[in-house]
Amino acid sequence: MEEMKGPKLAEIIYKPIGIIRSEYIDKEDTPIQSAFSPSEGEVEIFPEYAPGLKDIESFSHLILLYHFHRATGFDLIRKPFLDDVEHGIFATRHFNRPTPIGLSIVELQEVRGSVLKVRGLDVLDGTLLLDVKPYVREFDRREDSRSGWVDGKGVEGSIGITPRRLDEGGIRG
Amino acid sequence: MEEMKGPKLAEIIYKPIGIIRSEYIDKEDTPIQSAFSPSEGEVEIFPEYAPGLKDIESFSHLILLYHFHRATGFDLIRKPFLDDVEHGIFATRHFNRPTPIGLSIVELQEVRGSVLKVRGLDVLDGTLLLDVKPYVREFDRREDSRSGWVDGKGVEGSIGITPRRLDEGGIRG
Repeated sequence: MEEMKGPKLAEIIYKPIGIIRSEYIDKEDTPIQSAFSPSEGEVEIFPEYAPGLKDIESFSHLILLYHFHRATGFDLIRKPFLDDVEHGIFATRHFNRPTPIGLSIVELQEVRGSVLKVRGLDVLDGTLLLDVKPYVREFDRREDSRSGWVDGKGVEGSIGITPRRLDEGGIRG
Repeated sequence: MEEMKGPKLAEIIYKPIGIIRSEYIDKEDTPIQSAFSPSEGEVEIFPEYAPGLKDIESFSHLILLYHFHRATGFDLIRKPFLDDVEHGIFATRHFNRPTPIGLSIVELQEVRGSVLKVRGLDVLDGTLLLDVKPYVREFDRREDSRSGWVDGKGVEGSIGITPRRLDEGGIRG
């Protein structure tokens, strides 16, 4: 196993390019996916990166990559919010993962200078932004995909699914 | 601007969880999007993370997040491969971006221990893997999206688009 030490020990260092302002200050009340969130908020790009937003308004949806700043370590096997059965962390989207990077697809509503007004936020207020990419139908949509344990949960098109509501049985109940 | 120093100076440190083995050793010959790639290869998860793969085989597609290890800095405004017009970097998927994280959606063909055999690779051999997430139709597919400058390029469903072929006029020509 000695030969793996090189890549395993490598560290990759990033600096945030902005910060996400949402209405959520409690994980329990934060929608568990952007697809389930009606919440509007703002993505503030730090001013030195603002020129990179040119033409972004021509895209209806954006992919946000961000750091789960309140993740608390990780379990390789765990129950995700939407299931009662344990799965490997890479078969879930839970935030307590080895590399705590989150991904949300949000709807872009307006660009005001270096601030993006978006809909569909599922992150805590103050989340550090790593990257913004355009969501591109020609690149990102897959037809005929099979979604493992999520298929059959009946959540497609649902709005308002949070950990607290799942605990209360408000969705599956 | 003093109040922004905190978040701006923050550094986020990640360690790769694996490495991607592809047939590509030259950027010019690497498909510019996974949607355009027929290429098969392997995603090697480092053994200590392998238990996190449990049940991943029940998903047909995976989202790979990885470090663009051969990015060479960034330009905030640039021409993407598929266009002759400059756009802001956040309105493109180019690898020379402030935070050089790449995203590919690949088809999972087989799981062999800690190795994922996948189709649709658009990355250089030796790319360091940061995260694997299941592609979940109920979370990740957006209908009625508008994709800015990419719409109208006529690339949907294309296979084999690389920088070299674009230079030679083989796609647009």
